[in-house]
Amino acid sequence: MSNQININQIAEKDLKGSTFICGLPGVGLVGNIVANFLINNLKLEQIGIVDGNTFPSISVVKDGVPNHPMRLYAGEQVCNNGKCNQIVICVSDFVPPNAVTKDLVSTIFDWAKDKGCTSFITAEGFSVPPNDDEKQSIVYGITSTKSSKKWISDAKVTPFEFGTIGGFTGVMLNEGRLRSVNVLGLLAEVEEDIPDARAASKIIEAIDKLLLEIDLDPKPLLEEAASLEKELQKVNEQVPTDSNNSVSRYIG
Amino acid sequence: MSNQININQIAEKDLKGSTFICGLPGVGLVGNIVANFLINNLKLEQIGIVDGNTFPSISVVKDGVPNHPMRLYAGEQVCNNGKCNQIVICVSDFVPPNAVTKDLVSTIFDWAKDKGCTSFITAEGFSVPPNDDEKQSIVYGITSTKSSKKWISDAKVTPFEFGTIGGFTGVMLNEGRLRSVNVLGLLAEVEEDIPDARAASKIIEAIDKLLLEIDLDPKPLLEEAASLEKELQKVNEQVPTDSNNSVSRYIG
Amino acid sequence: MSNQININQIAEKDLKGSTFICGLPGVGLVGNIVANFLINNLKLEQIGIVDGNTFPSISVVKDGVPNHPMRLYAGEQVCNNGKCNQIVICVSDFVPPNAVTKDLVSTIFDWAKDKGCTSFITAEGFSVPPNDDEKQSIVYGITSTKSSKKWISDAKVTPFEFGTIGGFTGVMLNEGRLRSVNVLGLLAEVEEDIPDARAASKIIEAIDKLLLEIDLDPKPLLEEAASLEKELQKVNEQVPTDSNNSVSRYIG
Amino acid sequence: MSNQININQIAEKDLKGSTFICGLPGVGLVGNIVANFLINNLKLEQIGIVDGNTFPSISVVKDGVPNHPMRLYAGEQVCNNGKCNQIVICVSDFVPPNAVTKDLVSTIFDWAKDKGCTSFITAEGFSVPPNDDEKQSIVYGITSTKSSKKWISDAKVTPFEFGTIGGFTGVMLNEGRLRSVNVLGLLAEVEEDIPDARAASKIIEAIDKLLLEIDLDPKPLLEEAASLEKELQKVNEQVPTDSNNSVSRYIG
Amino acid sequence: MSNQININQIAEKDLKGSTFICGLPGVGLVGNIVANFLINNLKLEQIGIVDGNTFPSISVVKDGVPNHPMRLYAGEQVCNNGKCNQIVICVSDFVPPNAVTKDLVSTIFDWAKDKGCTSFITAEGFSVPPNDDEKQSIVYGITSTKSSKKWISDAKVTPFEFGTIGGFTGVMLNEGRLRSVNVLGLLAEVEEDIPDARAASKIIEAIDKLLLEIDLDPKPLLEEAASLEKELQKVNEQVPTDSNNSVSRYIG
Repeated sequence: MSNQININQIAEKDLKGSTFICGLPGVGLVGNIVANFLINNLKLEQIGIVDGNTFPSISVVKDGVPNHPMRLYAGEQVCNNGKCNQIVICVSDFVPPNAVTKDLVSTIFDWAKDKGCTSFITAEGFSVPPNDDEKQSIVYGITSTKSSKKWISDAKVTPFEFGTIGGFTGVMLNEGRLRSVNVLGLLAEVEEDIPDARAASKIIEAIDKLLLEIDLDPKPLLEEAASLEKELQKVNEQVPTDSNNSVSRYIG
Repeated sequence: MSNQININQIAEKDLKGSTFICGLPGVGLVGNIVANFLINNLKLEQIGIVDGNTFPSISVVKDGVPNHPMRLYAGEQVCNNGKCNQIVICVSDFVPPNAVTKDLVSTIFDWAKDKGCTSFITAEGFSVPPNDDEKQSIVYGITSTKSSKKWISDAKVTPFEFGTIGGFTGVMLNEGRLRSVNVLGLLAEVEEDIPDARAASKIIEAIDKLLLEIDLDPKPLLEEAASLEKELQKVNEQVPTDSNNSVSRYIG
Repeated sequence: MSNQININQIAEKDLKGSTFICGLPGVGLVGNIVANFLINNLKLEQIGIVDGNTFPSISVVKDGVPNHPMRLYAGEQVCNNGKCNQIVICVSDFVPPNAVTKDLVSTIFDWAKDKGCTSFITAEGFSVPPNDDEKQSIVYGITSTKSSKKWISDAKVTPFEFGTIGGFTGVMLNEGRLRSVNVLGLLAEVEEDIPDARAASKIIEAIDKLLLEIDLDPKPLLEEAASLEKELQKVNEQVPTDSNNSVSRYIG
Repeated sequence: MSNQININQIAEKDLKGSTFICGLPGVGLVGNIVANFLINNLKLEQIGIVDGNTFPSISVVKDGVPNHPMRLYAGEQVCNNGKCNQIVICVSDFVPPNAVTKDLVSTIFDWAKDKGCTSFITAEGFSVPPNDDEKQSIVYGITSTKSSKKWISDAKVTPFEFGTIGGFTGVMLNEGRLRSVNVLGLLAEVEEDIPDARAASKIIEAIDKLLLEIDLDPKPLLEEAASLEKELQKVNEQVPTDSNNSVSRYIG
Repeated sequence: MSNQININQIAEKDLKGSTFICGLPGVGLVGNIVANFLINNLKLEQIGIVDGNTFPSISVVKDGVPNHPMRLYAGEQVCNNGKCNQIVICVSDFVPPNAVTKDLVSTIFDWAKDKGCTSFITAEGFSVPPNDDEKQSIVYGITSTKSSKKWISDAKVTPFEFGTIGGFTGVMLNEGRLRSVNVLGLLAEVEEDIPDARAASKIIEAIDKLLLEIDLDPKPLLEEAASLEKELQKVNEQVPTDSNNSVSRYIG
């Protein structure tokens, strides 16, 4: 069986200069909640699907419409205060099998380069031991290149200095470094592997700070994220997921 | 081992404008009962077989004739009240392995496009928890395209709004959407995974409403379906089946 | 690993118009006993071997001569009462793995067509529940084509009407039907999966009736079959066999 | 992963007319002891290695020199009484996986034919039930061709008449018969699967009788074989071995 | 899945005449500690990565920079007393799967030959039973060629005479011998499979003696190695490692 991954574009958009944001489920479904929140809030439109032979044979039905479990969305240019932003989002309802993670990342980089996407953000949860303190989930940031390092402070997140980052985000960073492509990994602490809207909302705040031109209303953020939490968990229980994925860990 | 699926046509028919109906076993053998009922009632003739390296090495003998476990049937044009219908049926005695479901759907769409089939119906059972009420099995409908959405009300079935649809029907809907091909998925509630003639008869009624020109005698429907139920269960016990298939679920 | 099956011919014979008889072990080693009996009685000569990467790496030594575990035999034309017969026999000391059964059948049909073989018989055992009656093992017959259906009555066997036939015999019948090649499947009831000379002798009688020109002495048949039974069982215990093979079943 | 086997020659010798002797470990490490004894006694020189992707990734260090686990050795022509002999030895520290046995045998025959080797001997142990008698291990002989049958009596070993021979020796005999290449299989009875110098020495005596021009000093044979026994067992414990290999068995 | 291994060079250096040192984790993480110590002390710069489909999908983050788990480093020429040295280091945070070890070694030799590297050192730990004596860990040396044998005494290590060397070091030695490339294997005794800075420091001393022009300060060696020990163990716990790797053993 070939592991080849294909991107099938179903709607044309000018994506020149856009930021490509990846939200794959992982720990706490954090990436998934972030991506769905942005798609709903920015009223993005589906522009394609990502598929492969080893991806699950499943349709995710929303509002009576059948969907592939990994999809691409984009919107129109959003301009504020003279600065403009355009976003492409890759959202997935499953964690891709480890054996195809490198192929998936290559396919995404090749496609995105062809479309003119200039920077990448990947959002994921990150296991930490439970803690009684009321302290908030920390979001760590790490970039693939020196020139993008500034994004960590711009997004007001904690630099990730030492540790291992497994799976999709790890490969995005490695491959980004090799290709001199700017990738920002955002990893939010999650204490239990249940859908975690709070951790997701922290990442959304960071993206909001970074992409200033996007006007995310901070108020309803947590409530909206929480309602996504329930819906996505139901979908997630149905989608077969590769349990062999490495979990990222911070070595303090 | 290559997963390639082939369709081998053994009889020529003009299939231009026909409806392609798929009946794979699944929960309650519902799809299988529906397809066999239609083949028997409409006196369809076998026109080909679908085979692949990973399909079971088994012959299903009926009336002393050996059969491949996945087959294609078609009839002559049926015209009533000035409207005409022609039907192609794909019936299977086994659930195809997950790893080849996408290849199977691609092969079917390519072949059907080449023959001029214009619409697709796939019928399957759908697990629901047992329920003491005497209420009848609900049939849900979902379509791959906006233009085919009307079929749901025409068939007088309940729209499937949120949830996941695994396996063959899920991939038919996803791929149909991607190819802009009209696919109607009909999913009948089944409480136990035993052959369920009652659920199958509900789907047959829906197909009858949709394809008005076909004259299905509603009376003996349940009895006929029930006799198929027994025969198919015996065959089903003999055919090795992939147990890893995802089961569809409705998220209310 | 490629599943490709090759036939390697080591002696030339004119096989035009011959009958190709397959005897693979299966339940009760019936096919194996039948094939060996015919080879010994008709004094056939080995003309080739069938081999594949997934076939067992084993030599079956007989009379000090090493043999591949799947072999082809043929004799000179046998003429009686103005009618002539020539027989090719494929005998195997192992059940081929399910994954290559279709490849094996294709290779055999291609080779046999090239050599001019015009009809095929495949002999196998067939599990039935133990029964206290003294009644004899029934032999069922089924053919791949309408034109060969007469063979069932000629051989004085019971028609196999409904059921499933797994493995090599099932695929021979399916593929024979698809290629319009005449195949007769002979299935003898076996109560226990131990070498069953009695069931094999019933099939030999049926073949004798069908191929009238061959002069099989009916007397010593059972005794000879019984002595083969012991020898083949010893070989069978040594040859690794795929245990996943489907077993045929009759649905009365 | 490709199963391709390669022979890499590192020293040139004229091998025209030579005898190719194979000593793979098997039961009692018999083949291994035989091959090492001959290499040491005849002061043969390493002329190449045999390697494949599925062969173990291990170096066998002897006298401070790293070695591939399967190697080829040869010497200069040995002439006695006007007759000359040259020997090529293939020695292995592991049993090759069953899945590549046929590829390995093909590669050896192709290479040997190209070099002009005219006959083949393969030596192996052979499990028999423990026996209290003090009787000596019997060595059985079997040949691939009629013309080489005389070697069995020349070597004064017992003909192997009925049974199965699994693995490398079995495939050498089958393929030798198919290619009309003279192969002698020598199988020594081994009661326990521990290194068995006594059984190996019996095979060495047989080879000595067959290749008269080689002058093996019979006296120290058993002692030398015994000291090899210890060394090889240590190596054998380190080399991963495929445990699925069929064991040969004699059917008396 | 293809096992192909690729080397991706990210910085150009003149490597003509350089020594290529490999430090893969293995028993006691010895190779890993050695390689990291040399990289830090000689202030080497990353010049490339080694990657393959079967290598773990993980990023090893150091100082906020994402890294592939197998990397190449090199420095500027180091000259002392009129002699010059240049070093390339291949360091890995995981043990490569056995199935790709041969491909990895081939890729490294091909690349290194192309760059002009003239000699190879591979450092690894080596299991020995625990021992109460206070005696120090012995370092064994073995070379692939006669001409490099002198390195063993130059490095003041004990010659490795008989035994087996599994995995990467074993294949480097075998393949080095076959290609007539000078490879020195350095194997330090390790009593427990925990990171062993003491064993690593013994190997570093040996390398120091061999490559005289490099000026390693012997004093802080053990302390530095010990601090690496902790960091690497944390990384090692995160990186999935193939547990089927053969362990080397000395046969005294």
